[in-house]
Amino acid sequence: MASESIGKVVTEIGRRIGKHKIENTLEILTCYAFDATNMSRLPQAVAFPESCEEVRSIVGLCFERGIPVIPRGAGTGFAGGSVPASGGIVVSTERLNRIISIDQGESMAVVQAGVVNSVLQKEAAKFRLMFPPDPSSLEVCTIGGNVAQDAGGPRALKYGVTRDYVLGLEMVTSEGLVVECKGTGLRPKRWDPVRTLLVGGEGTLGVITTARLRLLPQPESFRTALAFFDSTVAAAEAVSRILASGVLPAAVELIDSDTMDCVRGFVSIDIPKGVGCSLLVETEGRPSEAEDAMVAVEKTFAKSRTMGLKVAASDREREDLWRMRRSISPSLARIAPCKMNEDVCVPRSRLPALVEAVGNLAKRYCLRVPTFGHAGDGNLHVNVMLDRRKKDEMARAEAMVNGLFEATLKLGGTISGEHGIGLTKRRFLADQLGTDGLEFQRKIKASFDPAGLVNPGKVISDQ
Amino acid sequence: MASESIGKVVTEIGRRIGKHKIENTLEILTCYAFDATNMSRLPQAVAFPESCEEVRSIVGLCFERGIPVIPRGAGTGFAGGSVPASGGIVVSTERLNRIISIDQGESMAVVQAGVVNSVLQKEAAKFRLMFPPDPSSLEVCTIGGNVAQDAGGPRALKYGVTRDYVLGLEMVTSEGLVVECKGTGLRPKRWDPVRTLLVGGEGTLGVITTARLRLLPQPESFRTALAFFDSTVAAAEAVSRILASGVLPAAVELIDSDTMDCVRGFVSIDIPKGVGCSLLVETEGRPSEAEDAMVAVEKTFAKSRTMGLKVAASDREREDLWRMRRSISPSLARIAPCKMNEDVCVPRSRLPALVEAVGNLAKRYCLRVPTFGHAGDGNLHVNVMLDRRKKDEMARAEAMVNGLFEATLKLGGTISGEHGIGLTKRRFLADQLGTDGLEFQRKIKASFDPAGLVNPGKVISDQ
Repeated sequence: MASESIGKVVTEIGRRIGKHKIENTLEILTCYAFDATNMSRLPQAVAFPESCEEVRSIVGLCFERGIPVIPRGAGTGFAGGSVPASGGIVVSTERLNRIISIDQGESMAVVQAGVVNSVLQKEAAKFRLMFPPDPSSLEVCTIGGNVAQDAGGPRALKYGVTRDYVLGLEMVTSEGLVVECKGTGLRPKRWDPVRTLLVGGEGTLGVITTARLRLLPQPESFRTALAFFDSTVAAAEAVSRILASGVLPAAVELIDSDTMDCVRGFVSIDIPKGVGCSLLVETEGRPSEAEDAMVAVEKTFAKSRTMGLKVAASDREREDLWRMRRSISPSLARIAPCKMNEDVCVPRSRLPALVEAVGNLAKRYCLRVPTFGHAGDGNLHVNVMLDRRKKDEMARAEAMVNGLFEATLKLGGTISGEHGIGLTKRRFLADQLGTDGLEFQRKIKASFDPAGLVNPGKVISDQ
Repeated sequence: MASESIGKVVTEIGRRIGKHKIENTLEILTCYAFDATNMSRLPQAVAFPESCEEVRSIVGLCFERGIPVIPRGAGTGFAGGSVPASGGIVVSTERLNRIISIDQGESMAVVQAGVVNSVLQKEAAKFRLMFPPDPSSLEVCTIGGNVAQDAGGPRALKYGVTRDYVLGLEMVTSEGLVVECKGTGLRPKRWDPVRTLLVGGEGTLGVITTARLRLLPQPESFRTALAFFDSTVAAAEAVSRILASGVLPAAVELIDSDTMDCVRGFVSIDIPKGVGCSLLVETEGRPSEAEDAMVAVEKTFAKSRTMGLKVAASDREREDLWRMRRSISPSLARIAPCKMNEDVCVPRSRLPALVEAVGNLAKRYCLRVPTFGHAGDGNLHVNVMLDRRKKDEMARAEAMVNGLFEATLKLGGTISGEHGIGLTKRRFLADQLGTDGLEFQRKIKASFDPAGLVNPGKVISDQ
């Protein structure tokens, strides 16, 4: 769209919702051009609605004028999902940041889409409740983004992902209609295609404005430990053993030695020399339960090549461990300026095979590939480190990622555990869904967004 | 369709998959005409495929000839979902009854759609695993039906419903295509609209042939108790109190006195005189955890008008209690020959208000309305007992059900917690979804089944 006519649209949006809620200066556009990948493209304007009605007003106008709308939470995605790849107007949810209610009796929260995950956690904690999804970006990422991406996190091993906690949603459709999926109690309303599809829809079906979420009682106590192994394969085998034993920790996170080198400064626990891989394990529940479960975990390690295990001795040590874990992603910049961050997922018994394949690929392409992630779910974050300015390195990294996806699918896995398809994985989607599956995906997208104006070009490539 | 041409189709199906797998004698048609409502209509034929390929072959032929296809599990539904309301060919999954694999390391089962829930439970138990959904009909109902209805059961309070355990599905579309949604590990493949929509789709989108299910470790031990209250309202208040206290039992089931009168023969536990309502409460986990949680439940009762609580003293007594609970639905025939079985669901803090509304409606319309169900979820099974041959009683019962749905929606509830919309609740769906929500539902149905041949007339009324 020519800048002249976008100017008119910006003026009209300003007239409708207030001038200070729509921006198109280069400074602002630049801030909303990117996500956590290295991709970026300037939008034509950025809107900051403060209510569902304002979202409706913006989206309705964009529909009339044929302008793409790109919903955006905190822009922490790893697949380009919020990058305005075809230009258009970014609808930022950052001012839709009200916690509307927390109901202790119902174990339920109603929040606007732009509420930050950790802000909700803190409010819920006042009622001894928690919102189980805990992506590492929880200090900044928003509930709307969590819903759109069906976010997980370490606790997903025990508690499942965002989908398991979304009771109802309010959304604005591409045509500017408000659709409410109310959801009730612990049993959300039956066959509610709108709610069902919006969760994990990567913002391609409409703009989520409000979510009604199920909360759970906070566990009373925790046991948190770091266990050490001589190799990543040995750690992966230990994970399979824990889970086959019947004990279900809240989290089992793998951290390989390259990764640990980037974050060891965060923990006061002494890491023995020669450690090739660590597992961060947390059990929880009533005090006796947390303790019993950790003892059961330790027992399974007796059969693994473990180099020992250190249990956090205080809340402070526990917090250190988790801060270390959550700092991994940004800290990897210590290795190289850029990364291709993939999050493949395999059946957990195939984890050792996946880890071996990653090691072999890294060797073949002479790349450093720090690997960590939600090992208990078979979900690993494989980070191919590189300097994008070096063409040869870039080519090797791309070949490595292709090899990784091939190996993953061969192991019966999936090319994304939680980061989504976005822009970066579109070309692999047909391999995973099959042609018929992809065709259904297209039809469903079209029934929500016939003109293809909501987050165009994401997930499905040829729109 | 004229009986002459249906004869040709039956012959052709017999030729394709074997004569013994398609029947159209009146005796067989009669057996497949009904579900657990009192509705019935004869289908034109019943097919018994033994493989996905055979389902594909039947459905493909029906599509060519424009014949409706009605998927059917065990026919235990309470909303007419498997009643062949427009005639057509019933596709029974009863011979699709193979457990293909149970993988202990992955905590995963792959089963054909016709596997009976309790058969899977028994096989999973050999690996110390369980499939959490436990509808009362578990001795006969099938996994395909559980998936299509998104079945719950008493354990849903702690574990959620079928949706939370479906990792992947194989289905046959209305046009006779096989679509596979593989699902992987504990994190099912991202945004998979086919899997997502089939769960709870009430068999209107295609025929489910295989499911890949997530299993969980069996709890080590249980505490199971029957608690007594002087009135249903007092019991409902006690439920709200338990759940507000932060303890999460595996099940909290309410059984009012009319209901208990029908099943008290099943339990050896002595029920005190004057009991107006009972709660069946189960806690579980490691032994100390199950015990601690039951103690916590008892503490909350101290603030309720409780008439005491008896804990099952042995596995036998626990089994008795659950057999009693599962026998309720068929045992209600002791009160009257017919029932309108509704399963409304409200935010659980509104449970006392719902119970009061049910009592008032029963009085106003002079009907006996035994009420029981998953009180912990706010989901009650309200049974309006009647003799359908008496016109006046029938009219009062219908008025009572209308009043019940009105009261439920007014309390912020939903007209079905788990039984589905099927035929019986179609006319109330617009009230619940809104016009736009219903329009999306129509579009999505059309993108799966453009000719409207799969389970026609269900859920959405005007097809």
